[in-house]
Amino acid sequence: MAPALKEALLQVSSASAAGAMAKLGVRNVWIRGAMPMAGGGARTVGEAFTMRFLPAREDLVGPALAALPNSRAAVEAMEDGSIAVIETGGVTDAGVAGDVLCTRMARRGVTGLVTDGAVRDIAGIEQSGLPVWSRGTASPAPGNSLTFAGWGMPIACGGVTIFPGDVIIADRDGAVVIPQALVEHVAAEATEIERFDAWVVSKVEAGEALPGLYPPSAETRDRYARESRTESR
Amino acid sequence: MAPALKEALLQVSSASAAGAMAKLGVRNVWIRGAMPMAGGGARTVGEAFTMRFLPAREDLVGPALAALPNSRAAVEAMEDGSIAVIETGGVTDAGVAGDVLCTRMARRGVTGLVTDGAVRDIAGIEQSGLPVWSRGTASPAPGNSLTFAGWGMPIACGGVTIFPGDVIIADRDGAVVIPQALVEHVAAEATEIERFDAWVVSKVEAGEALPGLYPPSAETRDRYARESRTESR
Amino acid sequence: MAPALKEALLQVSSASAAGAMAKLGVRNVWIRGAMPMAGGGARTVGEAFTMRFLPAREDLVGPALAALPNSRAAVEAMEDGSIAVIETGGVTDAGVAGDVLCTRMARRGVTGLVTDGAVRDIAGIEQSGLPVWSRGTASPAPGNSLTFAGWGMPIACGGVTIFPGDVIIADRDGAVVIPQALVEHVAAEATEIERFDAWVVSKVEAGEALPGLYPPSAETRDRYARESRTESR
Amino acid sequence: MAPALKEALLQVSSASAAGAMAKLGVRNVWIRGAMPMAGGGARTVGEAFTMRFLPAREDLVGPALAALPNSRAAVEAMEDGSIAVIETGGVTDAGVAGDVLCTRMARRGVTGLVTDGAVRDIAGIEQSGLPVWSRGTASPAPGNSLTFAGWGMPIACGGVTIFPGDVIIADRDGAVVIPQALVEHVAAEATEIERFDAWVVSKVEAGEALPGLYPPSAETRDRYARESRTESR
Amino acid sequence: MAPALKEALLQVSSASAAGAMAKLGVRNVWIRGAMPMAGGGARTVGEAFTMRFLPAREDLVGPALAALPNSRAAVEAMEDGSIAVIETGGVTDAGVAGDVLCTRMARRGVTGLVTDGAVRDIAGIEQSGLPVWSRGTASPAPGNSLTFAGWGMPIACGGVTIFPGDVIIADRDGAVVIPQALVEHVAAEATEIERFDAWVVSKVEAGEALPGLYPPSAETRDRYARESRTESR
Amino acid sequence: MAPALKEALLQVSSASAAGAMAKLGVRNVWIRGAMPMAGGGARTVGEAFTMRFLPAREDLVGPALAALPNSRAAVEAMEDGSIAVIETGGVTDAGVAGDVLCTRMARRGVTGLVTDGAVRDIAGIEQSGLPVWSRGTASPAPGNSLTFAGWGMPIACGGVTIFPGDVIIADRDGAVVIPQALVEHVAAEATEIERFDAWVVSKVEAGEALPGLYPPSAETRDRYARESRTESR
Repeated sequence: MAPALKEALLQVSSASAAGAMAKLGVRNVWIRGAMPMAGGGARTVGEAFTMRFLPAREDLVGPALAALPNSRAAVEAMEDGSIAVIETGGVTDAGVAGDVLCTRMARRGVTGLVTDGAVRDIAGIEQSGLPVWSRGTASPAPGNSLTFAGWGMPIACGGVTIFPGDVIIADRDGAVVIPQALVEHVAAEATEIERFDAWVVSKVEAGEALPGLYPPSAETRDRYARESRTESR
Repeated sequence: MAPALKEALLQVSSASAAGAMAKLGVRNVWIRGAMPMAGGGARTVGEAFTMRFLPAREDLVGPALAALPNSRAAVEAMEDGSIAVIETGGVTDAGVAGDVLCTRMARRGVTGLVTDGAVRDIAGIEQSGLPVWSRGTASPAPGNSLTFAGWGMPIACGGVTIFPGDVIIADRDGAVVIPQALVEHVAAEATEIERFDAWVVSKVEAGEALPGLYPPSAETRDRYARESRTESR
Repeated sequence: MAPALKEALLQVSSASAAGAMAKLGVRNVWIRGAMPMAGGGARTVGEAFTMRFLPAREDLVGPALAALPNSRAAVEAMEDGSIAVIETGGVTDAGVAGDVLCTRMARRGVTGLVTDGAVRDIAGIEQSGLPVWSRGTASPAPGNSLTFAGWGMPIACGGVTIFPGDVIIADRDGAVVIPQALVEHVAAEATEIERFDAWVVSKVEAGEALPGLYPPSAETRDRYARESRTESR
Repeated sequence: MAPALKEALLQVSSASAAGAMAKLGVRNVWIRGAMPMAGGGARTVGEAFTMRFLPAREDLVGPALAALPNSRAAVEAMEDGSIAVIETGGVTDAGVAGDVLCTRMARRGVTGLVTDGAVRDIAGIEQSGLPVWSRGTASPAPGNSLTFAGWGMPIACGGVTIFPGDVIIADRDGAVVIPQALVEHVAAEATEIERFDAWVVSKVEAGEALPGLYPPSAETRDRYARESRTESR
Repeated sequence: MAPALKEALLQVSSASAAGAMAKLGVRNVWIRGAMPMAGGGARTVGEAFTMRFLPAREDLVGPALAALPNSRAAVEAMEDGSIAVIETGGVTDAGVAGDVLCTRMARRGVTGLVTDGAVRDIAGIEQSGLPVWSRGTASPAPGNSLTFAGWGMPIACGGVTIFPGDVIIADRDGAVVIPQALVEHVAAEATEIERFDAWVVSKVEAGEALPGLYPPSAETRDRYARESRTESR
Repeated sequence: MAPALKEALLQVSSASAAGAMAKLGVRNVWIRGAMPMAGGGARTVGEAFTMRFLPAREDLVGPALAALPNSRAAVEAMEDGSIAVIETGGVTDAGVAGDVLCTRMARRGVTGLVTDGAVRDIAGIEQSGLPVWSRGTASPAPGNSLTFAGWGMPIACGGVTIFPGDVIIADRDGAVVIPQALVEHVAAEATEIERFDAWVVSKVEAGEALPGLYPPSAETRDRYARESRTESR
């Protein structure tokens, strides 16, 4: 992702990004259940590094388990500026990442972790500085109920499909995915939504009523065009 | 609602109000899922302004959608001191209100928003000053999964029936509805529950055991009557 | 529980305790839904004092109800240093304990309350100083939907079986049970897990990669043995 | 609804009707949870007569309850050939209709009952001959947990919005709503879907593979056009 | 239970029994999730023999497990004519009883099994002749996720509290509990409800409208009294 | 799978297979939610042909959709005697297969379809003769809420991990997976479980009590060994 594009997206909320996508008819983009768990929901933006966990199966131990991919190798494959997005199938009674993995991710320049499952050792995670969006915390390690299945494939996370390289914006409202092909369009459109939204709020704070103002009538559009021109001079 | 009545209710917790209603056999009054999301659960009291959302249906666009009532008009119909109570059927993957609507509600003197769904743009909502009780936040706008159906009708919110004009008390424990016909009785009874409760807690802090004290034996009742008489002199 | 054992357990996280039990094949130990509600998740350790609520049945009033055990008597049976663990069957629309009960528990030296249900009057509970792990708060009193069934029996809380005298560790990740017969072993093992974990995190912070380090290769084990020997001199 | 239109719809499955609407982008039409409970799922078609239940509130008794609309009056307002569609908010621990109401509905020419809740006295309902789609059966009467709120308004049933006069097709796969404005189009399109589907199945039974056949290539379309012309001669 | 009382209850539906209890304000009596799984829902009546399962804990094996009560001993304690009611906490991924236990129960004169969990080997259970109400079937044995905790205590089954000796009526609508102290009253009242209900249905079949008839006006009551007197001569 | 092995597995129930795996500590093998929907639960056995659906995303249309794998191609890759196992993430408001796909599967010698989602056009599926285990039926086609993601990868179906080539046994109790490496062992062990179970049931039918008999004491084991030797002569 070009730095300017990333910079632009860091200025727009996940709500505005969702709004920009809704205008294109792309609606199923909000990752259900992934809420700010570490980092206070300060906005992060990055390309999705996808990972998948499957339900634990008790025969997958020893050599059978060693033959499967593992989550530590996945972390070492993450690129600077990416966001780890982890599918669990909604399992919340084990934490898919703890202090060790999160510290290593932070060290590799990963800028966020988003999952429809839980994380563990939240105190340790906070010390790592890695911001996390999850469905909560849990004490047990993933092996209790999950088996790591691999990385870099399309996943379902919180009812949303995410392909590797799609872009994630996460903030206090949660996390949304922007399909790769739409990123530039969404960045531009969401920026404009933010700007118009701020203008509307300023009018409402000044006492104006909503009908005609929001959503805007033709007249309001003209007025906004005039006023925002003035402002940006 | 008379100012004195409102003032009295602001002094009692939602728990005491629920307790007062339980004594009348009215038990299904706590709005499941509506928890403090903005405003920190500082207590608010007001008459319910009811609103209803239905599931989105893709044919309801353009003129068909324009023919339906809309949420902006609803906001303009809200009265000073009322609390917006919004039924969503439990849909939490879209936010029924964002910064614009909440700023306008706050401007109109609305003293709270309670919903069994989600809100969006929580950072903007906090700036509006409107206190919110909801099941969380979500990035998408309501149109993603909900259609506004109208206001001023009886609704089901969080498993509880609310009629326009019923009274809402919301605080850190959540939000309860007081049926309009019971408000005066509940205010008086809950005030007494608060007073007795505080007296009991002071005794427990002083080291007394619970049996006989809470719930009170006849002897405890006498003692409480004596002591609270003394106190209020 | 011997003071030294309790002291040792206070130094280990619920995550490390769960990890120590997983090594024994004991995995179903994390109490689903019981999250920090009062006390900020500061760690507590104690022997479980079990209590059970059943669904309310409307014929259980008056003498029929008086013939059943009651929760106030239960509180008076709690011992100093114990943790109250309350089964509700997952009912969250009534609070199983409020300010009065929690104040009395704190007074009796109880060091925590853990439940798969809700608590009520959270503001009052915070004043009592009793730390609470629950599935949330609710305004109504338990009588609305629950009947107290007794104490001191094996219970199911959050999908986990707890016997009286089992040990509970609760912190920010939630609460886990340690079966009584395993407590000493788990304390020792979890202490070692904590120590190794801290060593690994220090290496990761210094820039080391995960493969070989975590989980440790034979070489890493040797290195850790060497370095931790040095450290403890 | 014109008799010929009804007749046409009786020849198409709810699956084909859903398929015809999906081609128009209208997708949220299948009433979740309403499955054949009486009548074996034999297909029925009719205009929706909407009814709504709200959660029971214990103060709504005596005169307060008598002042509300009631379900018996609703039944008397139903027209010959209509289908009763009942919103419960998903409450399944009380039956919204039993033998008396169903017998009367059948007598009035109602051709089906569809609900996202439960029905009661299923043996008596079967004797009435009224076909029912519901989420199951329950012994208790609605008063246990529901209050009747009225009829003839837009409702949410099983996650789908239904307006009075929309058309319902219910069969073994469940029940779908067809928005009133789309009924003629859907009837024609679904008829064609049925016809093409039957042709495809006949080819598959004869051993043809799917790629190119389904969904059809241009060549398959030509072939179908030719063969269906021949057939209908 | 006296034979005449049992005989009377076998003539009334679970719906009528629930209706009789609702008149007493006793509403939470229907066991959620327990639906006919073997025996086709043919009505059965008997005193509850309560059993409880807790979540499996992996340390409860060998001597620790042997020290706990077991379900085979429970079966040998069941009396002729009783109904086994089994609490599972809603666990449905293991079957609490299979062909061996059910065959033995049938042999001991047990007249039904009711559970909020699942059963296993449904084909074998059908051969045993024991009628079963459950939330489905599952292949795994209980040990997979449940531990037997004992019998003869108050239990929660499907959200309802059941004491040993309470009476169960189960039929096609599901299973309800009648508190022991209310059995005679409920039997008489439900019998009358059945009789009146049948009279109403006969009127509705003859073409009468509901208002005034059901629920009955004073006039309808008189008419019913007259006609039922005549009938019973 | 060797024909003799398949033949042996067709003689054992999914319950006995689950029992045999439980003895190895392999417990998470029952596919939650997949119940007999077509074919009446008559037993089927085969190697799993795995398929995965992801949540639908509205940008995946036209060329973007055409670039993804499709379910028709998957069907053409199925081998004679295999069982299609379809992951949906638990989505039940669209049917992953209908009459066309099922007819083609049956034609290709596929001996079952197992899914944690729904199927559509159940009447047409029954005519195809393909036995189906699913969480129900739904009218809409998969495109409404699901996107096909591919086949031949490890999947999670009903909370269970399934690798291509694992063996499925499905019957009236539901469907279990047998890990490929355990198939021979499980077939032998489950056969013995069936045999012993039948012997126990015959004793119970003859009036014997359970303690000592089931689970068997050493003495019972001897007796069974003696009697089953005699029988098999």
